[in-house]
Amino acid sequence: MFLPEALQSLIIELQKLPGVGEKTALRFAFNLQQRGEEAMMALVKALRDVAEKVRPCPRCGFFAEGELCKFCSSPDRDRQILSVVETPADVIAIERAMDFKGLYHVLGGVISALRRTGPENLRVKELVERVKNEGVKEVIIVTSASAEGETTALYIKKALEGLDVKVTRPATGIPMGSSIEFLDALTLSRALRARKEL
Amino acid sequence: MFLPEALQSLIIELQKLPGVGEKTALRFAFNLQQRGEEAMMALVKALRDVAEKVRPCPRCGFFAEGELCKFCSSPDRDRQILSVVETPADVIAIERAMDFKGLYHVLGGVISALRRTGPENLRVKELVERVKNEGVKEVIIVTSASAEGETTALYIKKALEGLDVKVTRPATGIPMGSSIEFLDALTLSRALRARKEL
Repeated sequence: MFLPEALQSLIIELQKLPGVGEKTALRFAFNLQQRGEEAMMALVKALRDVAEKVRPCPRCGFFAEGELCKFCSSPDRDRQILSVVETPADVIAIERAMDFKGLYHVLGGVISALRRTGPENLRVKELVERVKNEGVKEVIIVTSASAEGETTALYIKKALEGLDVKVTRPATGIPMGSSIEFLDALTLSRALRARKEL
Repeated sequence: MFLPEALQSLIIELQKLPGVGEKTALRFAFNLQQRGEEAMMALVKALRDVAEKVRPCPRCGFFAEGELCKFCSSPDRDRQILSVVETPADVIAIERAMDFKGLYHVLGGVISALRRTGPENLRVKELVERVKNEGVKEVIIVTSASAEGETTALYIKKALEGLDVKVTRPATGIPMGSSIEFLDALTLSRALRARKEL
């Protein structure tokens, strides 16, 4: 290869980012190099700060800089409702979508034979503890609507059995804006079976 | 915002990369955080190395780590042919496309009224010096086939006038694999006018 070794190493590192192939990594590296030392050092500082300061919130698993994350340390959130999600990105999606005032619990994945993730690799035990000790009234299991997400939801429902808590799951159905013609069969059949009176 | 400040700063830095919006920056930041301190420090090291070691080659303007770039310091390249390009990315494109054995000259852009780039901001004077002193026999002007690229090509042709050097430009025409129906009018009319006997 005719590129300097330092640039090649940078391209290899950038290719580890999700969805970044060789061409994009090349573009990123050239852009950084051309924007100069200052731009690269700004990114270096930001990376160092995250590496040093950001940890999972010990209570909910979302990102925290100090002791607890901004949700768990906020006095304005409703501690009686928990949204259980797979990843921190799901938290952001819910925050963007609606005015949810409860707290979160990040599992860190789903139960998956393929990826060898069992319940013991997820923060399920911590969830049970929170429900027991924090006066939680409702747990909304917002794992994905896939086989793995469903399995995980059922497992969590079982783990919470016997505790005084309502366990719910978001509705499945036809997503807004979609045409019936191109909908997958499973979504359509489920939506029809769960039909409601107008 | 409910994200830790350090993560927010990282997201802002990542959004400065070409083609990266807020959602992608978020994905990158989460991915880096979740891959842990080691992954982030590997990227930090790569960035530092590029910032410290990579400089434009004083001869051709491509990336160099030592004194000259790998092209200019290679004994295997034909010093009599120069491909003049806009950016280092164009060098990579040519290297990928064909077995070009000559050397390069990176202008650092094109003449553009919009971006306020005049010939004095490009490495044209350096090109003239190279042609004068390095025994160059042919200069292929591989700037883009746009108004700005054409203007730049004509300017360079003029700047090289009177020197004992052949100045060429790649052929324009119908790109491989394209259907006539959807071709833009300018490309089609040019290709027809430049038709060749079968």
